[in-house]
Order: sequence, then C-alpha cells, then structure tokens
Amino acid sequence: MANPVLPSSGVLSPLGLDAVRISPGFWGDRVALNREVTIAHCREWEEREGWIGNFRGEGPRRGREFSDSEIYKLLEAMAWADHPDLPELAETVARVQEGDGYINTRWSGSRYTDLEWGHELYCYGHLIQAGVARLRMHGEDRLTRVATRAADHVCRRFMEGTETCGHPVIEMALVELYRVTGVERYLEMARRFVERRGLPALADIPFGRGYFQDDVPVRQAQVFRGHVVRALYLASGVVDVAVETGDEELLKAVEAQWERTVARRTHLTGGMGSRHQDESFGEDYELPPDRAYNETCASIASIMLAHRLLLATGDVRYADLTERTLYNMLATGVALDGRSFFYANPLQVRVPAVPHDGVNHAAEGGLRSPWFDVSCCPNNVARTLASLPAYLATSGADGVRIHQYTPGEISHGDLRLRVETGYPWDGTVTVRVLEGGAGRISLRVPAWASSATLTYQDHETRAVAPGYADVEREWRAGDALVLELPMEPRWTYPDRRIDALRGCVTVERGPLVYCAESVGDEPPLAEVAVRPGAPLTEHARGEVVELETEAVLGASPAGPWPYRDRPHGWNGGPAAALRLIPYHRWGNRGPATMRVWLPVAD
Amino acid sequence: MANPVLPSSGVLSPLGLDAVRISPGFWGDRVALNREVTIAHCREWEEREGWIGNFRGEGPRRGREFSDSEIYKLLEAMAWADHPDLPELAETVARVQEGDGYINTRWSGSRYTDLEWGHELYCYGHLIQAGVARLRMHGEDRLTRVATRAADHVCRRFMEGTETCGHPVIEMALVELYRVTGVERYLEMARRFVERRGLPALADIPFGRGYFQDDVPVRQAQVFRGHVVRALYLASGVVDVAVETGDEELLKAVEAQWERTVARRTHLTGGMGSRHQDESFGEDYELPPDRAYNETCASIASIMLAHRLLLATGDVRYADLTERTLYNMLATGVALDGRSFFYANPLQVRVPAVPHDGVNHAAEGGLRSPWFDVSCCPNNVARTLASLPAYLATSGADGVRIHQYTPGEISHGDLRLRVETGYPWDGTVTVRVLEGGAGRISLRVPAWASSATLTYQDHETRAVAPGYADVEREWRAGDALVLELPMEPRWTYPDRRIDALRGCVTVERGPLVYCAESVGDEPPLAEVAVRPGAPLTEHARGEVVELETEAVLGASPAGPWPYRDRPHGWNGGPAAALRLIPYHRWGNRGPATMRVWLPVAD
Repeated sequence: MANPVLPSSGVLSPLGLDAVRISPGFWGDRVALNREVTIAHCREWEEREGWIGNFRGEGPRRGREFSDSEIYKLLEAMAWADHPDLPELAETVARVQEGDGYINTRWSGSRYTDLEWGHELYCYGHLIQAGVARLRMHGEDRLTRVATRAADHVCRRFMEGTETCGHPVIEMALVELYRVTGVERYLEMARRFVERRGLPALADIPFGRGYFQDDVPVRQAQVFRGHVVRALYLASGVVDVAVETGDEELLKAVEAQWERTVARRTHLTGGMGSRHQDESFGEDYELPPDRAYNETCASIASIMLAHRLLLATGDVRYADLTERTLYNMLATGVALDGRSFFYANPLQVRVPAVPHDGVNHAAEGGLRSPWFDVSCCPNNVARTLASLPAYLATSGADGVRIHQYTPGEISHGDLRLRVETGYPWDGTVTVRVLEGGAGRISLRVPAWASSATLTYQDHETRAVAPGYADVEREWRAGDALVLELPMEPRWTYPDRRIDALRGCVTVERGPLVYCAESVGDEPPLAEVAVRPGAPLTEHARGEVVELETEAVLGASPAGPWPYRDRPHGWNGGPAAALRLIPYHRWGNRGPATMRVWLPVAD
Repeated sequence: MANPVLPSSGVLSPLGLDAVRISPGFWGDRVALNREVTIAHCREWEEREGWIGNFRGEGPRRGREFSDSEIYKLLEAMAWADHPDLPELAETVARVQEGDGYINTRWSGSRYTDLEWGHELYCYGHLIQAGVARLRMHGEDRLTRVATRAADHVCRRFMEGTETCGHPVIEMALVELYRVTGVERYLEMARRFVERRGLPALADIPFGRGYFQDDVPVRQAQVFRGHVVRALYLASGVVDVAVETGDEELLKAVEAQWERTVARRTHLTGGMGSRHQDESFGEDYELPPDRAYNETCASIASIMLAHRLLLATGDVRYADLTERTLYNMLATGVALDGRSFFYANPLQVRVPAVPHDGVNHAAEGGLRSPWFDVSCCPNNVARTLASLPAYLATSGADGVRIHQYTPGEISHGDLRLRVETGYPWDGTVTVRVLEGGAGRISLRVPAWASSATLTYQDHETRAVAPGYADVEREWRAGDALVLELPMEPRWTYPDRRIDALRGCVTVERGPLVYCAESVGDEPPLAEVAVRPGAPLTEHARGEVVELETEAVLGASPAGPWPYRDRPHGWNGGPAAALRLIPYHRWGNRGPATMRVWLPVAD
C-alpha cells in the first residue's frame, strides 16, 4: 500500500504506487525526469548550500531555521522513488538525533524557545512523512526509526499543555504514522494539536494570529486565511484527524472552508495566495493576476488537501480542482529540464527577468531559478512527482475510479487496466482491460467537459455529464471503454466581483489555462486586447497545442497623466495575430512577459 | 524667511510663514487643529511609548531603531508652530549628544555598524530639519546647536569614503542647513551623499538595492523605484543639491524621473506606492486600488519634492500635483479630530475594520489609528501642516504667484493681498488688494479646470487656460481679481494600461477625488456599478459637497467557481441611488468599506 495518504475509512481508497504504474506521457515524462534529474539536483544544491553539512556539523550552521525540513522533503522524494542515495543521506541525518529523540541542527541548545517561528515541529512533520514513505515503500530502516523516535519525543513533550507549532504539517504526518504503525498516541497527539489551534496556542505576531491560523478554532473558521501553505497543510491534517476519529462536524467544517475558498479565493490556475507580503490568501475576490503569489508549495498543499477530501467524500469537485492544479500549477512550477523552479506563479508578468550571471534568484520575469534561500518548492515538487501515481485512481466498494488521465496501468483485485491517451492535448481516453474481473469502472468527466461521450465496445456512444461516468459489468481482457472529452478551446470570463480581472477574458482548452507570452516584447503585452468569441485556431507544435486569435494593439502613446475625461479603449489600433500557449509552458524561452487574462477590445 | 525650503536660486522663491498667513477655511482649520491638538497628541504618545524616555535613559530602550527621528519630526512641527513645549523637549534630546556630536539612543555603543538599516543618518536628517526650522523661526538656541553639532559630526565622519545611509533625508537637511548658515561643507557633504548612491554605496539586501535607490546612480535612473519615502526624500535632496551647485543635468534627471513616475506610477489621489511588501512603487501601470499602499508619509515626500521642482522651474505641473496630493492624501491621512491617522491610503477597502478595544492598530478598514509602532505618519503630518503656508505662494522676478487657494493673506514687498474663497467646495477665488504696489499677480488655473475665467475689477471677464493666469499692473488697495474655476463634477477614466482599473470610472469635482463609502455594508460595494455620463447631483452637507448618482446593484449569488463561459455583468440588477463623498472625508464614520473606482454597468 505505497501511498502518502491511506485513511482507514472514507468513501474511496487510494490506489498507490504499487497499483498504478505510469508510462511515458504528460505525467509519466515528468515523473521520470523527476526521478532522474530533479532529485539529484536538489541533493546537489542542499550540499552546496551547506544544509546537509549542518547535519555533519561542518563549520557554522548555514541556511534558514527550517532548512532541515528540505532534507526531509528530499528524503521523502527518495523514498517514493526508491532512490539509491537514501540510506546514506538518512545515516547523515540520524547522527544528529539526541538521546530523547529530539533532532534539529538549529535549535538544539534552545529547544522550543520560539514555537511561533522556530519550525521545529514543522521539521519533524516532514521527517515523519519521509519515514512513513519509507515504511510503506521499503519497511523499517534507519530513517524510519529516526522518524518514529522523533514522533515519540513529540508525544512525550507536547501531549499535555497548550502548545503547537507556528507552521502546521506535524498534524498530517502524525496521523499517517498512526495509520502505518497503528500506534494510537500519534493520532491523539495530532488531534490535540488540531484542537489547540485558535484557542489561541501561539503568541501574537505583527502579521496577526490569522497568519498561522491561530485566530479562531478550526471548527469555527469560515474560510482558509493567512499563510496559504500553513492553512492548507493544517486543513489536510484536520481532515486526517476527522476521518480517523469519525468526527463528521470537523470534516464538514473543512469542506465548507474549502468551498468558500475555491469560490472566492482561488485563481483560475488553481493557484492560491494573493499577497506577497505574508504569502497569504487575500480577501474574498482579491485575485490580482500580476501580484498573485500562488506559491508552488501552496498548489502542492492544495492537491494534498483535495485528495484527502476526495477520499473522504468521493465528491468529484475535489478531483476537478486537483486536475486544474496539477496541469496549471504543479506543471508550471518546474522547468521542462527539471532543474529550475518558480516560487510564485503570477498570471501576469509585466517586466522580463534581468538575470545576474545567468541566474534569476527571484524566479520572476519568466526565468525559473535553480534554487532559493527558502527552497521548499523544489523539494516539494520532487516529493509530489515521486508519489504522483497515488493521486490518479481509487477503489471503492463498487470498483475502480479513474480521476486523472495519463498513460499507465491500474490494478485492483483481479482487474488490470491500461489507460491510453494523448491527454491533455487530445481528448480521447481509452481504458483497455488487460485482465478481467467483475465490478464498476468509473471515469471522471471534468466539470469543464460539457459534451463528453462514453463508448463501451460496440455499444452505442452515450453522452456523459460532468461527474463520474460508470460502467458496471463482468470485464474481460480486451474490453475497452472510450471517453471522448471535448477539446475545443473555450473563452473564459471572470466573476464580476473579481475587481482585478474586470474587462478581461482568457482561453482554456481541456484542463489547460492558456496565456500570451512575449519574448523581447513582441507583441507588447501591455497593449494587447482580444475579441472573445473570435476564432481560436489550433497549431500543433510537437505534442503541444498552441492557439492563435486575432488581437488589437493599442496605438496611442502614454500621456503625462494616466487618467482622463473619456474612455481610453483600443478602437482604431492595428490588428495582429496573437499566439496563446499553455500556461504551464511559459517561461521556457528565457526572460519574458506574460498574461493569462487579456483585455477585451471595445 | 520662515521656510522649510529656501533655495538660493530658481525661477520662483517661496513666500514663507512670515509672508503667508492662513485664516479659517479648509486648510486654515486643519493648520489650527494641528497646532492645538495633533502636536500635543504626538507628544503624549511619544512619552507613552517611551521614545522620549529613551533620551532620558529611562529603563531598557523602547521602540524601533529609528524612533529618535519621531521626536525630531515633532520638534520640527513645534518649531514651525512656535510651540511652547519645544525648549524643554530640545533640552531632553540635547543631553544624549556625545562629545563629538554623535547622537542616537539606539546605536551609541555600536555606531554605524548597520548603515543599511540603522537609520542613524536618517535620524540626523530629521534633527537637522528641526534645527533649520528653529533657526528660521526663532534663531539660535539649544536645539539648533545640537543639530549643527550633529551635522558637523556627519561631515567629519563621512566626508571621505563611500558610505551613505539606507534611508535618505540627510541630503536635503544638509543643503537647507547650508542655506541657513552659509557653511559650504554641508552642501558638499550632501553632494557627496547624492553622488555615492548607486555606485553602489550599500550592501545588498533581500529586497534588492533598488529598495534604497542604490541600484543605479541618480543621474542614470529613469524613474522613481523602490521604497517610496526613501525615493522621494532622496529626489528632494538631489534637487536641492542640483539647484545649489547649478547642476542642470542632475535637475533634468530628477524631472524626467518625476515625469515618468507621475505618468505611470501615481494613483488618482496623488498617492504613490503600490506594494505593501516593501512599501515600494510597483512597475509602470501597476496601480491596484485595493492594495495601493500610498503611505501618508510618501504623499508628504511627494509634496516636498514637487515644491522644490516648482521653485526650481516654475512649471505649473508641480503645483498641480501638489494640489491633488494635499486635498486627497494629506487631508485624508488625518482624521477630522486630528487624533488618528491612516498609514496606507488604498482606493478600495473590501472589509471593514474590526477594532480591538476601540483601537485599530493597522488603520485599515475605515478606522484611523491614534498611533503606530512605526509612527512616522502622525509626526510627518504635524510638521507638514505646521509649515503649510510656505507651500501656497511664491514670488519671482515678476511678482506674486498663488499656487494653492485657501483663505489668508499674502505679503510681498509693498503688496498685501487677501484671498477669499470657499475652495475647494466653491470655485470662486477672490484676490483682494489690501495694500497696493506694482507688479504681476499670477493665479494658478489647475489642469482640470478647462473653462476657468478671470475678472479684474469692471474689466471684461476672460477665459483663462490651465497654467498661470497673469495680471500685471499698478495695484491699488481695493482692487480685486476674481478667478472662477468650474466645479461641475467630472467622470474620470483610467488609462487602458492600468490593468487594475479596467472597466471602472470615478468622479472628481474640483481638486477632489470622490468615493463611495459604505457603513454596515449599505450599499454593498462589492456589487455596485455606475453609468458614466449619468447625472451627478450635488448635495450640501454642511460645507461639504456630496454627490449622488444612479447605480446598479448586482443581483445574482456567488457560484462555486468564480470563472464562467459567458460575461458576468450587472444587467438586470435593481437600480439604487449611490452617494459619493470626497475621498478625504472617508473613514470618519467608523469601520467602513470604500471604493474610489466604480465598475461601469454594462
């Protein structure tokens, strides 16, 4: 059961890395690149930055107070990928663990003196997640013993009292360790951490307690708020606790918070986070394209949360958001060569990067960075891609559900299926039965697919509505189900309450958000408008489908004052063909400007 | 010559507090309130916070590393206001000065070890400005000697080498001290500080050197950038250096930077600063109404800079921006009771304040705060209002120019004039000659006044274009000039490149920007649209002119996902009367939402 999340109950059960094998294709290529390139890239940078050296006691400690956690995230990635370097790196880490299980290269002499910002429990959380991955992929070893001893230390130190950590993640880590070991104190510790939050459990800080979700108890909150990664990691742990303790009220609370957040605080790409200042959600409908923060890690946290809610409820909306976030955030966060990363993922970039010595440490302006002072994103990408097959399909009382489409094989009971597809470029998904058996096969029809059809063998093709399309029968080898998803490009408009997108439209095709990218300011994206409803012509460029539409270019120069007594539109500007590329492909041609949302020409 | 800025050359010379007397009226009332209430309010808070106590050595030092500067800004306000508390407060400060002139309550033991963030030279700058004010209003005393000794210390310590301060202000302070004392080393020191910047002179920081304008030399910069207050204080000092050294190239460089900044990086209110993260300018056309930072201090810095450029060049555009900034930023920064302040001045507020114990320390959501941990704004307001008459009128080779209209008297040579007006509510400005003499009287016709007229005695009324309307003659007591400015409310539209304002309009009347304010969410400003061109009815509420127009309310509920396959407009929503108030009046009725820019109903 090689799974990052393995609840003991819920509507759906995940099919893990042992049941889902991914083949070359959109995600298969990325998973392979991650295993072959990105994991080694992260290892190399963590050595270079001295963060691994901190565990060897080399010289003065380097890196931020939470840098240990980067090594743990990488260890988790290595565990899922069965990477040969894991034992040696785990051995390096293990040497720092103290007799009582405490382990931290920064705070050893002053344990738990700064729970708001110290990140000690946060680091344990990632260590324990790495340990859980190793237990499920390999079984007990040095790493899993280190993780378990750390968890035992946490239970001894924090079971009583009112304390918690400024950065959640320990909650979901402890529940998963409970799931894999059956040791109930881990669950109880996680439950207490969840219930303490918002009483409050932490000191006030200049950003306010909402920053680390300590402003109100979890059960009373109406929406996700504050630091996005913190909020979504916490909510993931809350779902885990709710599921394992049968706490329906708690689960419903998170569902309601998720619902409002998705309806009002989520960018079209699935990205979350509108403020740079404190890496936080903005207010309802505060969704600026240019200053969107949309941290890559936040999208990973959103996938972790949506996956848990999907397993608990079986509600397709969670799989829909996961698809959107996978294709438009996770795939965007890492370059095509697997060696550089976006930290923030805005939907509009006005100024191209000016790299120094070829490196763009801010990863802004269309140029990803190989590394960051705070390098959560690369390691988070690595551990997520290493475990990606676990997010694609589930089993339930009634059979197999396939939520995300990419070439590969799925086994469940007697049934063995092969998924064949050119998705997301092509809308045909064929599920071929390799080995038969009884049961239902359910295929997700995405919310955007308003005219999908399903064909079983020589039966009649039938229309299938968004949700899950089911076929139940005694399957025989050679049987095939063909789902046809409509891949016509679509013009998409924002809710009128999103002030920052007023007067703009964009284009989607299948699960992909598109954007205009400009290298060398050609075309000048500050002066482009489009006519929604105009033809969108498809152009294949290799496997990638690009689009073209007719745009209008602004023609008048800027005045001395940018406000005037009459409307300032595009009328009279020259027409020009505008190329649109999938958002996740942007920033692979060097410094560039970009915009997802395009003004409507008047 | 009681003036904060007194250049030795330039097209115009300022008329100072000794030549301009302000009477009750829009500004006269505020100047009086400042003298009677705000100065004491600041003094009281600086005692309460322990920042004055730091000078008495009371207990552990309190406040931020730059808190000394708040006392100095207050001393400057007291100097301009001839406040009786000044000598005692100056005495308290003086006791801390060391033998060589060094004075700082924070860094005494570790002088100049952190020029990037230490603010020592910044504090001197404000001390010297206070000293200059005192010299000009009163003559030499304890305060002026402390300031001069500090300046001498700076010259000894920094004349050679490459160092400067992370926060500019020392530059303009030293030039003014040179102007009042004639001691040339102060000018030379200021010149060197200006020329060092951008070579670079400071270490790099996470925000990048652009934050403190150390990214490129001043002469090479194209636009103001980085931290707004730093950028505008520096530019003010650069103008001062350019004027005193006859450096035309340097002056032209600042003029060009100002021009691009006003054309592309300035909010309708005159506010500058689009980012909270580093209190900085955004990129060109990055002007979000909701996340506009528009620090009150930045508007004061902008007035300081525009005034210097006006004196140097005589160009009316600088006086135009000053008017806009005075009425829509300075007047907004302080509450009607003179006891609470905005720090940031956004043009849209979605969520009303939730005060704790009646106080709203963030000063967001329509509720000003009596004080801040970083309390530059209240003190800056105090010193600016205390010296406000010096910004209203100038003399030149050819006579008197009146740039800002408020009731008062102006003397120059033999000429004595009285300004009578209900401006900005009423558009009639009468300039009455109390004592006669020869020369020209020039009245500024604001850029927005497209149909102004001027009448001299029984002569024919003539149309006057934006710029300066001149009448030259031998004036006799009893003569009167009447300027009529058109006060019809105007619909104003944004440049199409301002993405954050697309599809919106607003209303101005005279120099005032208007906004919709909602207390108790009535009307719900998230769902209001207007029809530009619709009637704008005036309603007098006391002296204040409010406006009313017909709006459309959105009627449909929010969906589960805020993006859709068709436009989402206001059609079909119910009509409602929408009241508009002057922006500077908002936030005087308790927690509220507000918006300046209103969506256009489709």
